[in-house]
Amino acid sequence: MGDPAGVGPEIVLKALRLHPEIFEQCQPVVFGDIWLLEEQARICNIPMEIHEVDLAEMKLVDKPGVINLVTVSGESPHSAQTPCGRLAFRYIETAISAALKGQVMAIATAPINKENMRLAGVPYLDHTEILEKLTGSGHTMTLFITGNLRIFFYSRHIAFRDIVEALDIEKLAGRLQTCRDHLMKIGIGQPRLALAALNPHAGEQGMFGDEETRILKPAVEQARKNGVIVEGPIPADSVFHLAIEGIYDGVLSLYHDQGHIAAKTYDFYKTISLSMGLPFLRTSVDHGTAENLAGKNKANETSLVEAILAASRYAW
Amino acid sequence: MGDPAGVGPEIVLKALRLHPEIFEQCQPVVFGDIWLLEEQARICNIPMEIHEVDLAEMKLVDKPGVINLVTVSGESPHSAQTPCGRLAFRYIETAISAALKGQVMAIATAPINKENMRLAGVPYLDHTEILEKLTGSGHTMTLFITGNLRIFFYSRHIAFRDIVEALDIEKLAGRLQTCRDHLMKIGIGQPRLALAALNPHAGEQGMFGDEETRILKPAVEQARKNGVIVEGPIPADSVFHLAIEGIYDGVLSLYHDQGHIAAKTYDFYKTISLSMGLPFLRTSVDHGTAENLAGKNKANETSLVEAILAASRYAW
Repeated sequence: MGDPAGVGPEIVLKALRLHPEIFEQCQPVVFGDIWLLEEQARICNIPMEIHEVDLAEMKLVDKPGVINLVTVSGESPHSAQTPCGRLAFRYIETAISAALKGQVMAIATAPINKENMRLAGVPYLDHTEILEKLTGSGHTMTLFITGNLRIFFYSRHIAFRDIVEALDIEKLAGRLQTCRDHLMKIGIGQPRLALAALNPHAGEQGMFGDEETRILKPAVEQARKNGVIVEGPIPADSVFHLAIEGIYDGVLSLYHDQGHIAAKTYDFYKTISLSMGLPFLRTSVDHGTAENLAGKNKANETSLVEAILAASRYAW
Repeated sequence: MGDPAGVGPEIVLKALRLHPEIFEQCQPVVFGDIWLLEEQARICNIPMEIHEVDLAEMKLVDKPGVINLVTVSGESPHSAQTPCGRLAFRYIETAISAALKGQVMAIATAPINKENMRLAGVPYLDHTEILEKLTGSGHTMTLFITGNLRIFFYSRHIAFRDIVEALDIEKLAGRLQTCRDHLMKIGIGQPRLALAALNPHAGEQGMFGDEETRILKPAVEQARKNGVIVEGPIPADSVFHLAIEGIYDGVLSLYHDQGHIAAKTYDFYKTISLSMGLPFLRTSVDHGTAENLAGKNKANETSLVEAILAASRYAW
């Protein structure tokens, strides 16, 4: 359900009440608190049918539009003592525990607020850290999916000027192999990968930039020796187009904006994010808690709907 | 008509014979040679009606589908002595001269081959250099248009690792002003511009990268003082989406791939390129001569059609 102070409860309500297509694909169950949904139902004037689920038995009502809810804190608006950041954390924690027990097959997360978590004394930075620590997983990788465009990221939250120095033949080759494994995990049989180039026109035979010949080409060759089907480096202004056309099943982008610009310019609202490398699949919305919109019936649930549908489609 | 050895003649033929919408918007006139069109008409099995135009009089036949042609070399396939690169150059040279005299209002160019031009002893590198030199213009700027997304480029064919050092407050502020002027030239009254950020999340308050606060923000402020309506730096993964949504009339991207990835992933075939800063408007296809496709009835004319329509729409 995400952070109670954000748009999470509203988009959960809208997704499950206004999108019957979700129920054709899966049985969703919400981890959160009932009063938050009731409040949004009133604000958005959306009638609601809730079935409270006992976590020990996990018996769901299989009727489109009925919201199966695992009550996590059990607090009411009047008795509420727990700060938002802690509630948000407990919703995720409970969902993770259910996923580890096989009670749910995948998790789609609504947005949380790092600052609220910090204020509530939650000892984790963000979703990724919570998921990695509570499942005992190693390094996870983000996979963006927009239509049939699938994008991995070699580096993410680092300064632009550090991007070049972070490139490493061994590490790139290893990542290409991991990308291949992750794509197979979501059901792609013989993944054909592409590595995006760094320089314009992939350096045009070294005319501007030599990282393609010095680092990227050797990395692709090494990955090939390890059995990965991969081409590249491919100029970054055509590689995503080629993936959309079906030439590649996935693209390893070299830096945050390279892959983000492609996905979000192609279709901002249908970009969903998968966390790969956990024992189960986790998908998430691509936006934040948007407190400024919360409680006003103004939030757009498209991204969460896509995240739920992707969780259902790609779960293993 | 572009380089005779490339797909130029074929896409010229297809554009003018298969797209009557062009004739609803403008009176196109081709600069090239008749036998090249005749050859493609035979290969593609497209019947053709040609009216040869006397350059001194410039009397066009105004009938949809009739190709008005200015014969430039007058050679035939059997008498042909002039190398391809020189023919391509003479087509452009003649068109530029006509544009400077006001005989044509804008030029849309088919692709040429730099290497063929060099082999033919043409003393210019590419279209841009030919256009700048033969019109006596100073620095031109490329403007990409894809739907309602309009993108300028601060730097282009430089190595990725040189992008950061090329950023300069004065120069950025000046470019923003030039972008404003160029948008007004193509008919946008009060252009609202955005400057794309360099670092992921625009540096997230300096957490990764300080170029936003050190260079980009001051450049935006200075441009504003000069009367430019501009916001930024805006995170690069949302700025293009916001322009598509109509929030901005144009985006100044900081480097080649930043803007190219956005335009070409959004709609590869409908991306057209305008050269701004010349006495007349010049548009061009966004692909090369593709010799491997030439003469096989395999070339796609969409980009040239868009370039012709854009030349007609935005000419001043």
